[in-house]
Amino acid sequence: MAEIQALTFDVFGTVVDWRSSVAREAEAMLAPKGYALDWGAFADGWRARYVPAMAKVSDGSRPFVILDVLHRENLVELLRQTKVEGLSEAEIDDLNLAWHRLDPWPDVLDGMARLRRRFILASLSNGNVRLMVDMARRAGLPWDAILGAEVARAFKPQPEAYDSAARMLGLAPAECLMVAAHPSDLAAAASRGFRTAYVHRPLERGPAREPKRPSPGTFDYQAEDFLDLATKLGV
Amino acid sequence: MAEIQALTFDVFGTVVDWRSSVAREAEAMLAPKGYALDWGAFADGWRARYVPAMAKVSDGSRPFVILDVLHRENLVELLRQTKVEGLSEAEIDDLNLAWHRLDPWPDVLDGMARLRRRFILASLSNGNVRLMVDMARRAGLPWDAILGAEVARAFKPQPEAYDSAARMLGLAPAECLMVAAHPSDLAAAASRGFRTAYVHRPLERGPAREPKRPSPGTFDYQAEDFLDLATKLGV
Repeated sequence: MAEIQALTFDVFGTVVDWRSSVAREAEAMLAPKGYALDWGAFADGWRARYVPAMAKVSDGSRPFVILDVLHRENLVELLRQTKVEGLSEAEIDDLNLAWHRLDPWPDVLDGMARLRRRFILASLSNGNVRLMVDMARRAGLPWDAILGAEVARAFKPQPEAYDSAARMLGLAPAECLMVAAHPSDLAAAASRGFRTAYVHRPLERGPAREPKRPSPGTFDYQAEDFLDLATKLGV
Repeated sequence: MAEIQALTFDVFGTVVDWRSSVAREAEAMLAPKGYALDWGAFADGWRARYVPAMAKVSDGSRPFVILDVLHRENLVELLRQTKVEGLSEAEIDDLNLAWHRLDPWPDVLDGMARLRRRFILASLSNGNVRLMVDMARRAGLPWDAILGAEVARAFKPQPEAYDSAARMLGLAPAECLMVAAHPSDLAAAASRGFRTAYVHRPLERGPAREPKRPSPGTFDYQAEDFLDLATKLGV
């Protein structure tokens, strides 16, 4: 069995708590304007448009665009649907950058510090490079490399998103461990030869919407958080 | 004038002392085998093959390959020329990784720490991603992103090497400051709209081969090292 050399991470939901962070950012901008929405539902509504928007790129209906572009289009639709009116273009741009200002889960910084002692740590996200850079600088995420959709010009779960990450790390896929809170992402990575680690994130979708844990043995590793993952990887 | 948001760095010669480091690595492998070469000249001979090898990619004579591949081809030629014989394939592979183990100039870590407080720091090198990752982990270089040739699939001074870096940073070229010890790299960056900072590296080519400083005003900034550059940028 090839030795694991690098960990490639899903980011939204696995490393950072997008829902609380986006809810906070939306409230910070819109509450002072008199809007009283369910901010968690606002975040959910934005996120719900994410997969269908990427699918139009992945199925060839439109050329590759970075996630910032899709997020902004989705935000404009969401503002219309939630009847938020009168934002300037600059305000919409700023709210769109909420995704650059997401907070990590509480275990992430300590867990990544341990994991980085032995492994290369790379983001393998559908977020674009600048989004990942802004998030990492704000949160202190110690990426060795930012890989994923923009560098690959393909969104997960397209094969090229995974293939390009292994290639740029100079590794066989089996030397890469995909870390994600989402079984579909892990399954796609496994189909390209990656090893897989499921990390449980009970609060990703908000309180009382805890996902079901995969059956034991579905993935190579299964961890409660990044500290538990580090322990299971022996670091 | 657009405000500078990111610094993009040439790496070989500007950030790291390739000549001393490669000479050290070659000596460490070959001296115990009884070879007594001029190790600085060995490094120079390897480096001399770098630009012609990339030119074959840039002029379309061969498809894009990463620098590790070119370095290894060049090493095999150099070993033949210097009459070094009997290395195993694994030994040649290991010596080729000398370029992953280059030491930074003495001012680099302190200088980058100061620069990173205000600016995004990205490598914009012809080295491949894994080379940059290994070098950064060994030396402690705090890159926010690793950009450049492999991500662009084009070697400097091809326009796409610079254009892709600005695009992935989400910046106008004029918001990017190219930092290099080589006027040709800076001139190519300037032709793509980047701002430019020349950093003097008197020892890059070895003792007593100090390059001539550019005339004042040739580039936007001119600095003696990264600490001086930080001061000149007000950080």
